[in-house]
Amino acid sequence: GALRARNMEGYGRFLALLAAALLLGFASVVFSLVWVFQYRDGLSWDGSAREFNWHPILLITGFVFIQGIAIVVYRLPWTWKCSKLLMKFIHAGLNAIAMILAIVAMVAAFEFHNAQNIPNMYSLHSWIGLIAVIFYALQLFFGFAVFLLPFAPVPLRAALMPIHVYSGLTIFATVIATALMGITEKLIFSLTNPAYNESPPEAIFVNCLGLLLVIFGAIILWMASRPHWKRPPEKNAEVLQPIGGTAEGTEAESTMTDGSNADKSDLRINSEAARKQNLKFDEAGQRSTM
Amino acid sequence: GALRARNMEGYGRFLALLAAALLLGFASVVFSLVWVFQYRDGLSWDGSAREFNWHPILLITGFVFIQGIAIVVYRLPWTWKCSKLLMKFIHAGLNAIAMILAIVAMVAAFEFHNAQNIPNMYSLHSWIGLIAVIFYALQLFFGFAVFLLPFAPVPLRAALMPIHVYSGLTIFATVIATALMGITEKLIFSLTNPAYNESPPEAIFVNCLGLLLVIFGAIILWMASRPHWKRPPEKNAEVLQPIGGTAEGTEAESTMTDGSNADKSDLRINSEAARKQNLKFDEAGQRSTM
Repeated sequence: GALRARNMEGYGRFLALLAAALLLGFASVVFSLVWVFQYRDGLSWDGSAREFNWHPILLITGFVFIQGIAIVVYRLPWTWKCSKLLMKFIHAGLNAIAMILAIVAMVAAFEFHNAQNIPNMYSLHSWIGLIAVIFYALQLFFGFAVFLLPFAPVPLRAALMPIHVYSGLTIFATVIATALMGITEKLIFSLTNPAYNESPPEAIFVNCLGLLLVIFGAIILWMASRPHWKRPPEKNAEVLQPIGGTAEGTEAESTMTDGSNADKSDLRINSEAARKQNLKFDEAGQRSTM
Repeated sequence: GALRARNMEGYGRFLALLAAALLLGFASVVFSLVWVFQYRDGLSWDGSAREFNWHPILLITGFVFIQGIAIVVYRLPWTWKCSKLLMKFIHAGLNAIAMILAIVAMVAAFEFHNAQNIPNMYSLHSWIGLIAVIFYALQLFFGFAVFLLPFAPVPLRAALMPIHVYSGLTIFATVIATALMGITEKLIFSLTNPAYNESPPEAIFVNCLGLLLVIFGAIILWMASRPHWKRPPEKNAEVLQPIGGTAEGTEAESTMTDGSNADKSDLRINSEAARKQNLKFDEAGQRSTM
């Protein structure tokens, strides 16, 4: 009764944050569309500034919104009855979509620059953006090779998972920082009369888009870093003596690879932790009857 | 023998990363000084662009470098024999210095704008920078009130520590993102003939400064988020029955407030974790004889 109520509270908080993230991510995409169609003459693919306009739209949709959802997709409680392998495909698939959209977005910027005789790759935005895309591609490749393909042994997965998690979150934060630089550049270059520093409606509106991106990123990072919102171990896994074929992510893997389990202290200083522990096992039992 | 060698290896990796962080942080400060003195006419306090030049120097020194060191200061192994209270004073003191330097840096930007009739607070850089400073001030105030003053009960400290850690790391990342926007703005505004997009030496040099800030931030976030590099619990604390006066940060606090301890799974799937655990206690014993 009381235990379940406590847990529902945590679950409700997760859902509220997820709703906020979806709302902010969706609002960011809408803001980028309004920016382009209301203030920047819409879209085309002809080397003009209208081709460049694909750049913010595709990056905010793919590299911010879709990447952010891909980061937290394992934590959605109603997916815990799906197989880990399926969730890995969804995680990898969302990230692959984000990668493709990011590449198309870069092409739009390069083609615009080339058509207008603007140099490429001179700005800090372009340097850090390109580095982020390269690291994202490496992350996708190694994530696929190590965690999705069935060849990597469990200890290797265990050793690489903390690096995968850290790299993913750091790349995500870097992508948002790069978007903020891009917004800054574009507003300075495109607002001339009135200028950016005269705060015309477009400047205020797009500054707000930048704020949305920061808040969206902060919520995703909070959701992704709470240990009690992790997907629980698989119910069909042998814990102490892993059976063969742990490749698709059994308990052995999802327990070992957390990076915070191996080195933790075992000390229990109050009953709260023990109660939560019991609750967790209780929950797992509930789930196995579904 | 083998256990100790394993641990030394982790210790060596920590020291290598710390050396890299110090080197990159120091290099960032040097780069900001070279930028200002080599390319931007040096420093003064007279409302000119030379007064503005304090802005990047103080922010990179205080809000990036000093804040970064303050974040990892509990993790320096040679401080583990110092009292937790002393380390809290150092952590709070470094953050207070960073706060003061950030405020002076903002004053320099405002005075420059006012003297030159440039509007204040129109850019995304200024919006997010001001928000970061406000949250940093709140973090400093609540950190002082809850974790340094002896009044807050242990359960409150335990509940707030994960939020303190998350806020600290998120503010730090936001500050670096804000610095990247500031660099972008300043290079666009101050490089005219040749322009930023013609990549003069100053543009390349300051882009490299931006890269240094990102790598510094990434290293600090890695060091701060490895669970096995945490400061170990105090040796004089009662674990299962905390004695009174836990206010200055005994084991009760530093164990409870991790945020990854309360909700972890207890499953042990190999002997590695148990060995590390033993090593930890062994280490603590060693330290207590120093």
